[in-house]
Amino acid sequence: MNSEARGSEVLYRQLASRIEGLIEGGTLGIGARVPSVRKLSEQHGISISTALQAYRVLESEGLIEARPQSGYYVRKKRSVKPQRTLALPPEPQMSLPPSTPITVHNSDMVLRVMQATSRTDLLQLGAAVCCTSHLPTQALHRSLVTAIKKYPEAGNSYDISPGTLLLRAPIARRSLDYGCALSPDDIVLTVGATEALNLCLRAVTKPGDAVAIESPTYFNVLQIIECLGLRAVEVATHPRDGIVLESLEEALERENIAACIFMPSFSNPLGASMSNESKKKMVEMLESRDIPLIEDDVWSDTCFESPRPHPAKSFDKSGNVMLVSGFSKTLAPGYRVGWVALGKWKKKVEYLKLVSSEGNPTLTSLAVAEFLEHGGYDYHLRRVRRYFAEQTQMALEGVARHFPEGTRANRPRGGHFLWIELPGQIQALDIFEDALRAGVSIAPGPIFSARQKFSSFVRLNCGYHWAEKTEMGFEILGQLVKARL
Amino acid sequence: MNSEARGSEVLYRQLASRIEGLIEGGTLGIGARVPSVRKLSEQHGISISTALQAYRVLESEGLIEARPQSGYYVRKKRSVKPQRTLALPPEPQMSLPPSTPITVHNSDMVLRVMQATSRTDLLQLGAAVCCTSHLPTQALHRSLVTAIKKYPEAGNSYDISPGTLLLRAPIARRSLDYGCALSPDDIVLTVGATEALNLCLRAVTKPGDAVAIESPTYFNVLQIIECLGLRAVEVATHPRDGIVLESLEEALERENIAACIFMPSFSNPLGASMSNESKKKMVEMLESRDIPLIEDDVWSDTCFESPRPHPAKSFDKSGNVMLVSGFSKTLAPGYRVGWVALGKWKKKVEYLKLVSSEGNPTLTSLAVAEFLEHGGYDYHLRRVRRYFAEQTQMALEGVARHFPEGTRANRPRGGHFLWIELPGQIQALDIFEDALRAGVSIAPGPIFSARQKFSSFVRLNCGYHWAEKTEMGFEILGQLVKARL
Repeated sequence: MNSEARGSEVLYRQLASRIEGLIEGGTLGIGARVPSVRKLSEQHGISISTALQAYRVLESEGLIEARPQSGYYVRKKRSVKPQRTLALPPEPQMSLPPSTPITVHNSDMVLRVMQATSRTDLLQLGAAVCCTSHLPTQALHRSLVTAIKKYPEAGNSYDISPGTLLLRAPIARRSLDYGCALSPDDIVLTVGATEALNLCLRAVTKPGDAVAIESPTYFNVLQIIECLGLRAVEVATHPRDGIVLESLEEALERENIAACIFMPSFSNPLGASMSNESKKKMVEMLESRDIPLIEDDVWSDTCFESPRPHPAKSFDKSGNVMLVSGFSKTLAPGYRVGWVALGKWKKKVEYLKLVSSEGNPTLTSLAVAEFLEHGGYDYHLRRVRRYFAEQTQMALEGVARHFPEGTRANRPRGGHFLWIELPGQIQALDIFEDALRAGVSIAPGPIFSARQKFSSFVRLNCGYHWAEKTEMGFEILGQLVKARL
Repeated sequence: MNSEARGSEVLYRQLASRIEGLIEGGTLGIGARVPSVRKLSEQHGISISTALQAYRVLESEGLIEARPQSGYYVRKKRSVKPQRTLALPPEPQMSLPPSTPITVHNSDMVLRVMQATSRTDLLQLGAAVCCTSHLPTQALHRSLVTAIKKYPEAGNSYDISPGTLLLRAPIARRSLDYGCALSPDDIVLTVGATEALNLCLRAVTKPGDAVAIESPTYFNVLQIIECLGLRAVEVATHPRDGIVLESLEEALERENIAACIFMPSFSNPLGASMSNESKKKMVEMLESRDIPLIEDDVWSDTCFESPRPHPAKSFDKSGNVMLVSGFSKTLAPGYRVGWVALGKWKKKVEYLKLVSSEGNPTLTSLAVAEFLEHGGYDYHLRRVRRYFAEQTQMALEGVARHFPEGTRANRPRGGHFLWIELPGQIQALDIFEDALRAGVSIAPGPIFSARQKFSSFVRLNCGYHWAEKTEMGFEILGQLVKARL
């Protein structure tokens, strides 16, 4: 970050802090409209973008909310009051990966990390999993039992690809809420989003092909690319706005890219989201070059603020975007119910699913269908979104309390993980090993990169309820980092 | 068949019929030892092989049974008395495919057949599915509910590859019954056997490699080979004894084979089973050449007679055999619970499973584990084996009643399907279309071959309870065949 940007950050944080005082003091009551961005900029002699940043800070802290075409309003306070005196760590900077293709080899490192995530003796800040008390376990069990009663023979028959209409129909219907108008016929059910990502990539690439990915990217994408014998081309990202279109365009110009596999909303691990405008531009850019986009949208349902973001698929006019999602993040990881909405490659992916695993288990699909129809999924989503927002804020403040100066952290607006840059070029893999010995599992940055970059980054899970042991875990991590400074 | 073979067939069928008369009349009571093969050969002035064929006919009809190192004995009669006056159609002959590698392209044909199998307006003689009244639906539901009660949070957590020990342990324990001594550590849980076959092939091949398959083979194997960009080398089979080792050896000598994928027990669609001696020889042959064997063993639990066959894996000393099985054929197709026991490639397949679909759904695995531990799987297997044996015999007799002379049919001793050769070089694809129009779905021979051979063969499912409509279905099929003679 240059000194100009740093100066602007000081400005908008001061401003945010002042407005927060007005809210906390009651001058700006719940539901009150705060001054427009333009007015704020004029009042304080700052740029529009600095004013906007100030509101983004307040918004990310849940104090104000944007209403379309109207402005920002004070929203009701969070149920858990964080320590307001803390200055949060600054955000990480844009990634600037080299954009030549590379063969991926990081399975051993990923396996070591994943093995740690299943150890019950560790504090789990590694895997992006969530506290089960905030999943609708009992309600989903009831949906499962209802499904068994309604369709007593379901377990006895193959639900061959594309899978039961009883689940594809409500998935399609829900897509109207986020700007898509999917038909059940567009959809193929898969074993989690993971299987969908595999099938989509297999449908549009052959071994040796180059695939554009975000830098950093979800590590499973790297594993899939490795196992399919593909090569990765990394695209630069901005910590809030996601994929940098100029970097993508450059990669498309220079390399023969067979497909893109991106997470445009609440990317993992970065937590960035592209704007609607950027998504639209990206879809058009890829469409004009006839390069398919595989869009991993698994985190959108966890958005902290309404409305849920529109996926890139909502701007797709030619069937060039494959929208991958599922219910592992919001409903039940163990059910493995994922899906993909396809355009041009529907027939191919449906066939690959048939050949790869024939079909999904019938009962789990029917249980999720039953829950979507009668279980109160929307009510549950509202609860779980609020919960993730709170836990993420707590974790961010935990970082502010315990990590040394120079630490940076992202400002996620969905999902439940933080992307932390450690100061002084401390190696995340060292901290990973130190933390394991101290009883804490974390996800080190290099597993999110084809080139094992992000060597000073760690991803911390915020899906568990913030408790004394979490506070202690953050304290331990902070001490381990300080010890290596 | 040449005239000599035909003459021998007349001889052994006459002889079988005569001995059957002695059994039916009580001259040879239950448990009585029938004359040795050598004695029979001397008594009737026929060859050893003709005498053996006669006993095989009686054995396939369940009237006598072989006891190791002892000879043939009269066994208790079947519970359903078939019409004894019928002369069953003769068996098909050995397959003799060319053994040059070939790229597979038959997805369209397979899709047409599979689409027909999900039409409820058709009599389903196509897919190898079974009557759900003979699956332990209620008991398995109870196991599922018990699993939910025992592990209320199970649906909330990923059961990442290799999958829960709670299911791998009873699978390993059961393997002692069939000559293996698997450890839970050898096993990876998969989405049905289908996913396991995919992962195993991916673990040991790369696109363009040649893979040895049986001729005919299960059509899904061809689809997998097609989708992975592999080439198929077809190996000759005998209708009762399965893979012809000389043909396999010849293929291994001539081609650079990367892997074999075979169904040595109750092959689909042929219904053949290799002897223990042949399996052992095959395992040694492949081991000495360092060529992995993927053994699809899904039908062994449906054996009509005890003991359940030993898989080739039971002769594996070096970890060269990957044993694939599951519970779709005996317990619940819709649960998609499959598994593979691995040797050398354990780590690779476990990793591929992780990357491809992360893990199996947790609750269905736990339900099956619960059923294996407390649900009476062995009792259920005895029932279902008897049922399949009866239904298959009924279907065989249905063929004898309704199909024209010159029709051939196999003599399965496990599974629930018949492999029928139509007379006069009638095209199975014509009969497939005729039958669809007449409301019956069948599986035409060419889908079981990389070269679309077996053009005059059809596979008929015998998994449904024999009823008036089945009788009518067979009558219709017989008439359609006669109409094209």
